[in-house]
Amino acid sequence: MQMPIDVPPPALESSVRLPVTRLRAGLVERVEDRVAEEVPVALVYNGISHAVMLASPLDLEDFALGFSLSEGIIDSPDDLLDFELQHSDLTGTRSMVVDGQAREEVGLTLDLRVTLRCFMRLKERRRTLAGRTGCGLCGTESLAEAVRPVRREAAVLEVKAAALTRAMQELAAQQDLQRGTGAAHAAAWCALDGAVQFVREDVGRHNALDKLIGRIARDGLDVGAGFVAVTSRASYEMVYKTASAGIGLLAAISAPTGLAVRTAQAAGLVLAGFTRGDHTTLYAHAERVLGR
Amino acid sequence: MQMPIDVPPPALESSVRLPVTRLRAGLVERVEDRVAEEVPVALVYNGISHAVMLASPLDLEDFALGFSLSEGIIDSPDDLLDFELQHSDLTGTRSMVVDGQAREEVGLTLDLRVTLRCFMRLKERRRTLAGRTGCGLCGTESLAEAVRPVRREAAVLEVKAAALTRAMQELAAQQDLQRGTGAAHAAAWCALDGAVQFVREDVGRHNALDKLIGRIARDGLDVGAGFVAVTSRASYEMVYKTASAGIGLLAAISAPTGLAVRTAQAAGLVLAGFTRGDHTTLYAHAERVLGR
Repeated sequence: MQMPIDVPPPALESSVRLPVTRLRAGLVERVEDRVAEEVPVALVYNGISHAVMLASPLDLEDFALGFSLSEGIIDSPDDLLDFELQHSDLTGTRSMVVDGQAREEVGLTLDLRVTLRCFMRLKERRRTLAGRTGCGLCGTESLAEAVRPVRREAAVLEVKAAALTRAMQELAAQQDLQRGTGAAHAAAWCALDGAVQFVREDVGRHNALDKLIGRIARDGLDVGAGFVAVTSRASYEMVYKTASAGIGLLAAISAPTGLAVRTAQAAGLVLAGFTRGDHTTLYAHAERVLGR
Repeated sequence: MQMPIDVPPPALESSVRLPVTRLRAGLVERVEDRVAEEVPVALVYNGISHAVMLASPLDLEDFALGFSLSEGIIDSPDDLLDFELQHSDLTGTRSMVVDGQAREEVGLTLDLRVTLRCFMRLKERRRTLAGRTGCGLCGTESLAEAVRPVRREAAVLEVKAAALTRAMQELAAQQDLQRGTGAAHAAAWCALDGAVQFVREDVGRHNALDKLIGRIARDGLDVGAGFVAVTSRASYEMVYKTASAGIGLLAAISAPTGLAVRTAQAAGLVLAGFTRGDHTTLYAHAERVLGR
């Protein structure tokens, strides 16, 4: 994919300042606070709407690419031919009266153009499911679709436990949106020694990871040369996305789920949870993390 | 709705024990850990599949009712005529090889029967959207649909800040699934003095809240006689669900988003964030929380 360089940056800010009332042990204080924004983002493929996600309006070109890869809509960055970001005014359909003033919400549309092959496959997938169940995301069929097996081999790598510790420390220092708002999750791409290469943030942890995967793919990075660290729990979706990108290790600050552990074991992904300070717990392929 | 009393309890456990490797400052320990389960749950209305959610297999009758109300599929508990829980074997479509053994995943189907009026409305909603965009959850139209205005008046109530403190303390003591797994969110229904009446848990915070709303509706409780406390952030969806249930106050342990704040202001919902210890920050309708 040739990423267009004339994409306008979103006019929407990723956070907003507003007056709040803080109560502390009986004391009342009127102060200004910063909160993270959350914006509906529609993903449209070759003119056909596919999904709407609530997301932080940051790094949306990475999101477009990462989401398309994670969802299996495209197989490689080259399948994404073009993309355009559009602001959609929700005037008329969505207005809220806040403090006596009507406030119009804004949505974003990511207009993506994928290869004919990917588009035909997406249409076929939607048509097949729609015929039986009315919706591409639904149905008894999609109980299986909802927990898809990972189709790609995860990179086999070995890291030291100290690399996970380092990754989490460096990640914490680079959470720009989280700092001040407290509402954002982050995902980091880390070298095998734990040095954080770059971070992506979003109010949704799945979006943050998709953005990271998009950036890795865009730069054509070797997925065997690093691992992913996230500030959230490790649910099935987080493991699925990481393993589907071919990445070999996911380290999470918080807990995994049972389904996430089994998916990691089956996909060959090292899964570390509760990675805090110099502690970590290994839930899958523990032999690839060296104690010292 | 007459809730059937012969619903079999899910055979699936809400958590599972498994061997893990713990690394602490260079020490390697093989121990047993408990992780929360995560199961695909399909919601089927009058034979038509609507959505699949990844959820904790707990309190699914409350989930069925709360999800149906929150999504506006039914207007009152009486619109849900019947429901049946079915186990779906995903054999053949989904099997993972874990430690050399094939492991079949299981999904759950909630077969719901709603009134003809609600079913026709749901079909119409899906047909209208499907005609334009191919999917009921998608499309430019659904940028507005994704951030729907709240159609119900929130209950007007006043509470003391101390009630929020008490609610969070009591909630923390009742997180059975979270304790030991670290992977579950909880939502509590609290009396106006902060006394927790009951708690619902799930690996997903939206599901935990839907379960709580289902339980409140099932018992026909006065939504003006209490408030909701949650262990998560307050995103738009959390505010939307709470306000749509007619509840007047949402207290969250963590941060709100900008869209959540505006939605709460417009809907008449008191929104408290960072409710920890004797601190809280009020983002909407602060005048209804009394400092002492």
